[in-house]
Order: sequence, then structure tokens, then C-alpha cells
Amino acid sequence: MTITHPQGFRAAGSAVGLKPSGRPDLTVVVNDGPSDAVSAVYTSNRCKANPVLWSEAAGADGRARAVVLNSGGANCYTGDFGYETSRLTAERAAQLLDTRPEDVLVCSTGLIGVGGQDFRDRIVGGLADLVAAAGGEAQHGEESAQAIMTTDTVPKTVTRTAEAPVAGGSSGEYRLGGMAKGAGMLAPGLATMLVVLTTDADLPADVLDRALRTATGQSFDRLDTDGCMSTNDTVIVMASGASGATPDEESFTALLTDACLDLMRQLHVDAEGAHHDIAITTSGAASTDEAVAVSRSVARSNLFKAAIFGEDPNWGRVVAQVGTTDAQFDPARIDVTINGVRVCTDSTPDEDPETVVFTREVTVEIDLKAGDAAATVWTSDLTHDYVEENSAYST
Amino acid sequence: MTITHPQGFRAAGSAVGLKPSGRPDLTVVVNDGPSDAVSAVYTSNRCKANPVLWSEAAGADGRARAVVLNSGGANCYTGDFGYETSRLTAERAAQLLDTRPEDVLVCSTGLIGVGGQDFRDRIVGGLADLVAAAGGEAQHGEESAQAIMTTDTVPKTVTRTAEAPVAGGSSGEYRLGGMAKGAGMLAPGLATMLVVLTTDADLPADVLDRALRTATGQSFDRLDTDGCMSTNDTVIVMASGASGATPDEESFTALLTDACLDLMRQLHVDAEGAHHDIAITTSGAASTDEAVAVSRSVARSNLFKAAIFGEDPNWGRVVAQVGTTDAQFDPARIDVTINGVRVCTDSTPDEDPETVVFTREVTVEIDLKAGDAAATVWTSDLTHDYVEENSAYST
Repeated sequence: MTITHPQGFRAAGSAVGLKPSGRPDLTVVVNDGPSDAVSAVYTSNRCKANPVLWSEAAGADGRARAVVLNSGGANCYTGDFGYETSRLTAERAAQLLDTRPEDVLVCSTGLIGVGGQDFRDRIVGGLADLVAAAGGEAQHGEESAQAIMTTDTVPKTVTRTAEAPVAGGSSGEYRLGGMAKGAGMLAPGLATMLVVLTTDADLPADVLDRALRTATGQSFDRLDTDGCMSTNDTVIVMASGASGATPDEESFTALLTDACLDLMRQLHVDAEGAHHDIAITTSGAASTDEAVAVSRSVARSNLFKAAIFGEDPNWGRVVAQVGTTDAQFDPARIDVTINGVRVCTDSTPDEDPETVVFTREVTVEIDLKAGDAAATVWTSDLTHDYVEENSAYST
Repeated sequence: MTITHPQGFRAAGSAVGLKPSGRPDLTVVVNDGPSDAVSAVYTSNRCKANPVLWSEAAGADGRARAVVLNSGGANCYTGDFGYETSRLTAERAAQLLDTRPEDVLVCSTGLIGVGGQDFRDRIVGGLADLVAAAGGEAQHGEESAQAIMTTDTVPKTVTRTAEAPVAGGSSGEYRLGGMAKGAGMLAPGLATMLVVLTTDADLPADVLDRALRTATGQSFDRLDTDGCMSTNDTVIVMASGASGATPDEESFTALLTDACLDLMRQLHVDAEGAHHDIAITTSGAASTDEAVAVSRSVARSNLFKAAIFGEDPNWGRVVAQVGTTDAQFDPARIDVTINGVRVCTDSTPDEDPETVVFTREVTVEIDLKAGDAAATVWTSDLTHDYVEENSAYST
């Protein structure tokens, strides 16, 4: 069970020949309602892929009945033809589901530049069988999660169940489901993170939207494996209202955030080429934004990431990155702890770095001594495998 | 001949035991005047090394008689003891040169955290012999250039000679010399770029300062091999006035810029771990700043840099990086040319990427079609050697 865990959702996955491997590459997720509330966040890259351009416009009214997702081609930088492909995909799905094209969102993932006539024909031509096959049973959710995989080694899914008031004053159960693909920003071809979340809670689009922005801000936005911003990133949440339960905004936001953190961790540990999963926590910051900025600056340092690959607790590279930010701190008072060993106190050497023990998980703690805010950013080390996979993928 | 090419300068280099290899690691450059005008630019990192903190204060009055530089230790994040070491170094050199400590600048390069009692003793103890040996002959300039090397494979030097008016209305010759160490920001330990430039032109400190900021802004500031900002970077220019010639500001700035570009190129091609030297030129920009920002965004993309290592002309990764900037452009109208092949026109595929021929030098041209400004940023590819050298250096 994944995206079909909540009531009111059907899904199916199939192989239409977009992937040379013949693996599943097309999926549809249908919201049968009664509600069709939707919200989505997209890549902030200004050079967006065509499916993002389509979905941003189509989903702007807070309503959607379905999402069609494909792997095997990003349909990015494919010009007007590519945009027309996304529109035709939505049109055909709408026809089959008896709804409007503007109620169908489209997501694509795979190599940039892939999105020609063949690509279009296989997707549009494959939709009739796909929609006919869509159901709510467990295996359909799994099929969907597999059909959006590119270089992922495992599908990423999540389910949650919680209590909330229902009409008439009693209490009922509502559910949340989700699937994700991608390896942070590590995936070659840049077409990386796609996430679909479903719930049978009865919530209007504006509540979904605020909850989604909070949840992604604390999860996916803080996974920064190689600093590269994708062209296709999309996170969608759809609410069917089929449970009749209406959780309060705060508890729904907490549940959605928890589910997004779960998916984010699955993306993190499956990041391509990574040998170490690094969590960088900055505390003592004047604000959460500054804590994120400091942690992110370290997460983006190739020198630091290469050092961690070599299991070298090189705290100098951490302090040097802190110094590149505008955060409030005294440059002479920074503490750095790596895997529990305080290697740097007040910007000078403290405990012997030789005593740091390395495992797959690495924690870096930075104390700025400038306030009470804290935040964690997750990243991966810079490895030979990263170089290899990203230099050899498309040639 | 390097920094002793202009009249009025003496230098010497020696080995005082800072480098385990026993190679030269300490040098002094003395300006015998008649003028003692100086200007310097330093790393913008807020967590600066101790010699930078000393020199920023000492050189603030636009006067200096000497610079003492060491390799074999960055004296960075070494606390008050480290600052005291820089001060004692200046004090001892001043005593030997019969000048004020505030007229001696100090530069250090090597590993962060290295700067203990031994480091101090060797430098301070070695200055008497070094100053006694200082001369203006050719070999002394070469010794100096070698004594500041860390992971450099070759010393980097430059000389220039030009005409300018002298007092009384006639025309005379003036000279410029320079030496540099570092491999952009690729050097492990972060203590990377040190540059000393000398001239016997007669120019006040404010003219030197404006000329130096223009020159470094167009040269060293546009070399961005791995996006990491150093803690010790220092570029110093000293003018002795010994030629009696006073070039106009514009022509001196042009000559200084030309010399800095020459040294920058030497740093670029000696960048550690690099297999390709990449020049990224953005044209059609609304301003020079935006052209630099766009070129720099591409220079910092690990995905793009790994692709170039694999000789994959992956223009999608270029357009995606352009999309992360705030520069003016139409996302659907970007052109990308790699090694002369127009692989992308109007953000869609154009000529066959397979026809791109790769050599050590790679040119990437981006046309934003939004204005008349252009700028180039230089970078290196992301290679296995880069990962290896930066993961294994200090452990």
C-alpha cells in the first residue's frame, strides 16, 4: 500500500517502452473524490521542464482528479513540441476519466532533451490500458512507485494513519500515503525528485497548500546532496475527503511533515554514489534561516564532502564554510563536533580528530553561540562513484 | 626575474623546516623605495587566518616595506597564539630591516590548524639569515616563487615592462613583476592563493588600490575551480617608485590586469586534479555582473563538471544552471555552444553533441540574448583525482 492506502484513490503502473530496460515507466494516480483538492510545489529553477509548466498552470485552481507520471524521459528543453506533449497527455487522460484536461497534472523524469514523437506516442497511446487497469489494491500502489523510478535502487513509499473529527462530532480515522523517486539532486540528467502524496482527509486546497509548504520546507528542501537544482522537481498532495475526517491544520501539517521526512530519508540513503549519509546540524543560530544557511554552506563544500569520503574529520573545512555565510556569529567562537567528538572549540583545535570513529552515518554539529535556533541539512559525501556515475551516464 | 624585475626590490627564499620535504618554505620581499606604497586584497571569508588579520590592519595605511611569506602551515584557526606569531614575525622582520612592525605584511599557506610553537620558532628564528641573503639578482626572485609553493607543480611568475612619463617631461621605462602560488580553490587545506606583485612605478597607494581591485576583479575573482572560499587568500601590490616613471592610472591598471590574468592562467592550468581547463563565457547579458553570475553558476555545478570530465557535452546541465540565477533572460531563448558546436538553440537541441571534439581546453559559450555584456569564468572539471587528492591529503 502506498498512494492507494487512503480511501478514494486508484492507481496503476505499466511499461510502455520509454525505458530501454523494459521496466515500468508510466503511472496514473486517480482521485475519485468526493473532493478534488490539490496542492503542489515545483522546482524553483527558472528553466523548467514542460510538464512542470503544464502542471503549474493546470493545478493553480487547487483542483485535480489525476496525475500522470512517466520515467524514461524528462521532456525538458524540448520546446513547444514538448509542452504540447504534456498537454496531449493530460487531454487523453481527461477523456478517459471523464474530466477536464486542466484537472490532470503531468510529471516526467529521466534525461533532459528526451521528449520526441516516440515519447509522446508511447505515453498517449498507453493511457487507455493504464486507466482501465487502475485499482485500489495494494499491488497498484507498488506498481506506481516502481514506474517512477530512474536510477533509484528501491521504490520509496510511506503510509500513515491518524484520528480526526468527522461530521457529527465523533472521531474517525484518516490516512496518508506517498511515493517518491530520486536521489536528492544526485541523479544524473537532473530530472530527479518526484513525490505524490495522497490523503482521504477532507481538507480544502489552501490548507493543503500551507501544510505542503511547511512539510517540504522542513524535509525535501533540506536535502542537498550535490547543490544542483533540478528542472522537473514536483511534490503533489491530493485530498479525496473520502474518510469524512477533517483533521485540524496543525496536526495534519505535522503528519504530512513526518511522512515527507520519512520519504526524504529514503531518498538520502539511496543517493547515487554516496558512501556516507551526512547530517549537518547548526545550533546557537540567531534564526532558523541562518541555521539552514550555515548547514547548507557546509553541505555544498566539495572539499568537506571529499574529506568525509576519506573519513578525514577536517573541521577546518567546516569553519571555512561557515565563514562564507552572512549568519550572525563571532568568527573566533565557533564549535564543531564530528560524530560526537568536539574537534574544534572557539575556532581552534580541541579533541584529537584521530579519535573520531566513522560509520555510514556522519553527524556534524556546529554551534554558533549567537542564538537559540537550530536546523539540520542532509547531504552525501563526494566520491569516486559520484564522479563516475555523473560523467558516464548519457554518453 | 620575477618580483625583483622592477628596481628597488630585494628578495630571498630559504628552507627553515616548515615543510617535511625540506623544500624552501620562507621568503621575504623587501621594498627599498624610495616609495613604500602598498595595496592588498584579502579573502572575503569571515573566518580569516591570523596572517590575514595582521596584514589587513598593518597595511591599512597604504604603506609597507616588506612582506614575509611562508608555506608549510596556514596559521589559520590557531587562536590568539597564532595571531601573536604573525605579529612576532612582523616585529622581527622590522627589527632586521630597521622599520616599524606595521610596515611588514605577513602571509601563510599550508594546512589549516598548523601554527604552533615550532612553526613560530622556525619562522622568527629564520628571518635574520633570510634578510641578510636578500638581493635583487634573478635567482632570488625564483627562490621566492619556489618558497611559497605548496601543492603547485611549478612556480608561477610574471614580468612586464612599459613606458611612462618621468619627472621633467621625458619618457622612461617602468617594470612590473609578480609571483603566485595556489591552484585556484582546489588546493587541499584551503590555504590557496598568495600573490605578490611589485612595480617600480611611482604611484600613490590609492591609485594602486583602485588598479588592484580592477585587476583582481577581472582575473583571480573569476577563477572558480571548486567554489570553495579560502581563509588565507592575499594579493599584494607594492610600488617602489625607483624608476621615477609615473604611468597614468588607466595604462597602469591595464598592465596590472594583464599580469594578473597571466598569473591566473598559470594557476588555472596547474589546478589539482583537473583534466580539463574550462572557460565559460556568457554573452548577451544585461550587465557584466549578470554575465559573471551566470558563468559562475555553471562553473559551480558538480553535474556539469563531472560531465566534462567524461567528455560529455551535456548542455542540459548548463541550461539548468542558468535557470538558478536571477539574471535577465527568457528561459526559452538560451543558446549554448560547446567547443564551437552549437548544441542548444533557444533552449532546445540543435547540432549533434556527438560532433563536439574534446581537448584539454574546453570552451562553453552561453548567449542570453538579453543585452550586450559578456564575461568569462574559468573552472576545472570534477575528476577522480580531485576526489582522491582532497580526501586523502591530511589523513
